[in-house]
Amino acid sequence: MDVNISPYDLRQLIRSGEFAGNTSGYSKGFVQGNLAIMPKEWANEFLQFCQLNPKPCPVIGMSANPGDFLLPDLGKDLDIRSDIPRYRIYENGKLTQEVTDVRQFWRDDLVTFLLGCSFSFEEALIADGLEVRNITEGVNVPMYRTNIACRPAGRFSGTTVVSMRPMKPKDAIRAIQICTRFPSVHGAPLHFGNPEDIGISNINQPDFGDAVTINKGEVPVFWACGVTPQVAIEQARPPFCITHSPGHMLVTDIPNSHLAIM
Amino acid sequence: MDVNISPYDLRQLIRSGEFAGNTSGYSKGFVQGNLAIMPKEWANEFLQFCQLNPKPCPVIGMSANPGDFLLPDLGKDLDIRSDIPRYRIYENGKLTQEVTDVRQFWRDDLVTFLLGCSFSFEEALIADGLEVRNITEGVNVPMYRTNIACRPAGRFSGTTVVSMRPMKPKDAIRAIQICTRFPSVHGAPLHFGNPEDIGISNINQPDFGDAVTINKGEVPVFWACGVTPQVAIEQARPPFCITHSPGHMLVTDIPNSHLAIM
Repeated sequence: MDVNISPYDLRQLIRSGEFAGNTSGYSKGFVQGNLAIMPKEWANEFLQFCQLNPKPCPVIGMSANPGDFLLPDLGKDLDIRSDIPRYRIYENGKLTQEVTDVRQFWRDDLVTFLLGCSFSFEEALIADGLEVRNITEGVNVPMYRTNIACRPAGRFSGTTVVSMRPMKPKDAIRAIQICTRFPSVHGAPLHFGNPEDIGISNINQPDFGDAVTINKGEVPVFWACGVTPQVAIEQARPPFCITHSPGHMLVTDIPNSHLAIM
Repeated sequence: MDVNISPYDLRQLIRSGEFAGNTSGYSKGFVQGNLAIMPKEWANEFLQFCQLNPKPCPVIGMSANPGDFLLPDLGKDLDIRSDIPRYRIYENGKLTQEVTDVRQFWRDDLVTFLLGCSFSFEEALIADGLEVRNITEGVNVPMYRTNIACRPAGRFSGTTVVSMRPMKPKDAIRAIQICTRFPSVHGAPLHFGNPEDIGISNINQPDFGDAVTINKGEVPVFWACGVTPQVAIEQARPPFCITHSPGHMLVTDIPNSHLAIM
């Protein structure tokens, strides 16, 4: 498949079942997002959790009304039930199955949230000439649980999950500047340097994703990560919830540049 | 003396000889600058050197014509020959004397440059709640020669001098964001972390200024420093040159906030 396929065409291939893979690298230039769908009696608390923790949980879209499965603000003819390559179904906080379509699970009380994802800022870093190690090495970005507490909201709480990209300090400074322009896709890093400062005991054993090489002269740089809300959902244990499967994102019609605040 | 004295009133006290001290902390909120005065046959090359090395040598003002000693763009009734508390006279690159007035040395071919100074961004850091260690400890900021080459221009060349402020990584990230708004006072840091990466062998022995405490969990953060042009002048050895004495700056009528690009 052409990596420059339009978001609309890509969603059509996903809907028809012709594509069910990782969306990383496809439809370059357009926002991809993390998905969270839950019953309305949980949605207000989740929205509050996101608003209190905007770095790990930046809301870039949500359904206008419970039960809505079309999200026209995010994409032409976008149907959230079928346009993501792979979904995860959670019941009472437990992952029960992975599916490629959730039409059979849809309910009139479900509220959809789309949260910003690091793909957008990685594209901006690369456009500026910086290396993004997980992309160079062709693996998933390494992610770690930390001791950085999220601000709780109702039944949602937990600690922040971070992603890590090693960089020379000079490049890290530039990355901080670039990512500051994109607060809705995790913004500037939370930390750099000593992993133990934020409760990471072994940088070579990420809790999610894959380890990457850290070269001499580089420091690990840590960004708030969109896995944070998934962990909060697992802890809160709503009776029913749908998320995307990691790396299998919603591809929107929104240009990444629209997320830049300046 | 009241630290909130207006820049105009402070310059009058300096001109009359009633004040000849360090200007740090006085006339809060107003730009203070590094001074460099040299013959016009050297001035074009120096200006080019500054334009090629804007982080250590940010020009925020210069005299309109050779011989001008009034700089109305920088301050009301500002006379560069008398309104700085302490000057250094260099002959052939050698410091020959320190004086409190340079009227007796003035020549019709002298061109004045005012370069941005870290006082402006330190004020912005403190206003945001960050600690600036050299201010907390009441000493001059530690400064170091590095192996970061400046881009040469004519007879001017050299390596970059940096100032260092220790910070927790989280605060360093915030400092990078704040200083990015102030490119004309050295802008974002050049480096953080391992001093040897930039040719500093002993962080506890600065080449200029005073050592400061680096606490556990903090990293040294390095900014390009206005001593860089002084070192370049010493190496270029113009036959005659005037600078301010460290810490004894020109206090202008320009609000620090005017230097913020956003």
